[in-house]
Amino acid sequence: MPRLTITELTTLASTALAASGASESMARITAKYLVAADAQGLATHGVARVPTYCAHLKSGRAKGTAVAHVIRDSGAACLIDADTGLGFEPCELALTQAAQRAQSYGIGFAGVTNSHHCGALGPLIEPVAARGLVALAFSTAPAAISPWGGKRPIYGTNPVAAVFPRRAAPPLVVDLSLTQVTRGQIMLLQNEGKPIPEGWGMDKDGNPTTDPNAILNGGSLHAVGGLKGTMLALAVELICCALTGAVLSHQLESLHLAEGTPLRLGQAFIVIAPASLAGNDIYNERVEALVEAMLQEEGVRLPGERRHRLAQEAARDGIAIGAPLLAQLRALARG
Amino acid sequence: MPRLTITELTTLASTALAASGASESMARITAKYLVAADAQGLATHGVARVPTYCAHLKSGRAKGTAVAHVIRDSGAACLIDADTGLGFEPCELALTQAAQRAQSYGIGFAGVTNSHHCGALGPLIEPVAARGLVALAFSTAPAAISPWGGKRPIYGTNPVAAVFPRRAAPPLVVDLSLTQVTRGQIMLLQNEGKPIPEGWGMDKDGNPTTDPNAILNGGSLHAVGGLKGTMLALAVELICCALTGAVLSHQLESLHLAEGTPLRLGQAFIVIAPASLAGNDIYNERVEALVEAMLQEEGVRLPGERRHRLAQEAARDGIAIGAPLLAQLRALARG
Repeated sequence: MPRLTITELTTLASTALAASGASESMARITAKYLVAADAQGLATHGVARVPTYCAHLKSGRAKGTAVAHVIRDSGAACLIDADTGLGFEPCELALTQAAQRAQSYGIGFAGVTNSHHCGALGPLIEPVAARGLVALAFSTAPAAISPWGGKRPIYGTNPVAAVFPRRAAPPLVVDLSLTQVTRGQIMLLQNEGKPIPEGWGMDKDGNPTTDPNAILNGGSLHAVGGLKGTMLALAVELICCALTGAVLSHQLESLHLAEGTPLRLGQAFIVIAPASLAGNDIYNERVEALVEAMLQEEGVRLPGERRHRLAQEAARDGIAIGAPLLAQLRALARG
Repeated sequence: MPRLTITELTTLASTALAASGASESMARITAKYLVAADAQGLATHGVARVPTYCAHLKSGRAKGTAVAHVIRDSGAACLIDADTGLGFEPCELALTQAAQRAQSYGIGFAGVTNSHHCGALGPLIEPVAARGLVALAFSTAPAAISPWGGKRPIYGTNPVAAVFPRRAAPPLVVDLSLTQVTRGQIMLLQNEGKPIPEGWGMDKDGNPTTDPNAILNGGSLHAVGGLKGTMLALAVELICCALTGAVLSHQLESLHLAEGTPLRLGQAFIVIAPASLAGNDIYNERVEALVEAMLQEEGVRLPGERRHRLAQEAARDGIAIGAPLLAQLRALARG
């Protein structure tokens, strides 16, 4: 597979997005986070998304001239209107806002409405940890999970993430969707013509299935852990939509359609300043004590550790990109 | 089984706690929430806990004369020292504080340190919804869950709860522990001499087991959903302990020991005011649209619905209490 440096890949992705109508800052910020995901080994949430984003910019499902701005300010909490542009720029603004508010008031909240896909939440919230702050993140996505006892998908995959800074080490990063597996994992087996394991999802009539097509065509994904994951998906849905005014997951059209209505999905970020509560010394002592207890056993890995190792390797060796995707990105960049 | 009215049972529980050394307010507030849990059908988190709490009050694991107070105030965030008293009074104070701050600043955070068991989180956070506020709650508990890849329990059962008010209906309540099942469910099968299903936990050597004794004696409980639930348990651990200064779950002695060191566990509450973000009208419209979509399918229940129905029945018919527990409470109340 061809390899590009992080700078080369970022420039390529950014140029492709700009050629499809994204503003300079939208293209640059989107490319930065997509490449960060690739560097961390999250290829399903990396530059592989650029062709879809470009299609949305061209069809108007995402607005290239959008300017995200704060539409409501309540002290420690604020609401940001993404103006139906791509999701990364408004989410970065939201994290900056929430972090500033956490530094002033101990905690800060920023909700984002009228937003688009924001990729993996981990790379978005990690910069906050570099400032010694704890962050929690939530996002919706087009409907994937059925309510417990139901057959029709209502809740999104509804990812949840958290980042905890460490004094002299990369932060701990928890970053997961509330489905048992991602759609990407199912598509992978679909492409290979293979069945999927039991317990991943249901067909459109609510029956368990091992046929990837039956899940992807009107079926639904199981929430992680059954009832409990389903309840958490409902909570994320309301945090991201009811507080912000974003459109509910089941009212959104699929992310994979090139044409359609703007996505208008919701994200929410909570940032907390340890210095405002028990203080940084106690915070750091507890984090290190937990890490030490975890690492006393062989086989235990810290959350985020693998991503940080891969990111270091990518900074040194570049990122491998499949030749067909690379050709597609180059064609898009030529406009 | 004997039946007591809610008032009778609350008075009995409160008298038992006071006779064991709890202050008037500690006894009253603890009894109120325990009986609320019984009324909602959560008997494992109801007055069945009173004998252990009384033992702790007598042995000094919980301090009957404790006065919870705010030790750090940062505007929207505050930290409360429970002074090693029972957990309900400081948690009620924390929710009052977080709600006031949410009304002033849009969001409020209150952490609790040096705390004791706080029972089910649902009944604690529901009153906040009556004021039109959204609340999230987190608690630790003595270690139950092993890190992914490990054998030794490090994280507590680490419950998570959320409450979402509705305009003209009881709130939606999500309230769950991050274990696949509760210890109580395992103890029930232990008492009946039955094996447990596979997938509930591991023995002390990290092997899967169907023997309840092997889990309860030094083994660990599986997190809900495997790796993902384990990651969430880690996040709850740090939110409740690193931010507040509470003792980490694996450094706590079991809740079930009558004698031992004070528990010093941690809780955290986040309250958000919908009025400060998209506004109450949009909030209510989104909540009702989601509820309507969920209820279009037969077999779907709203989270909290069963609890509210049972609480109404309990208000009318009283609460059934096993004769041995009732005798025990009466003996404790006589002092």
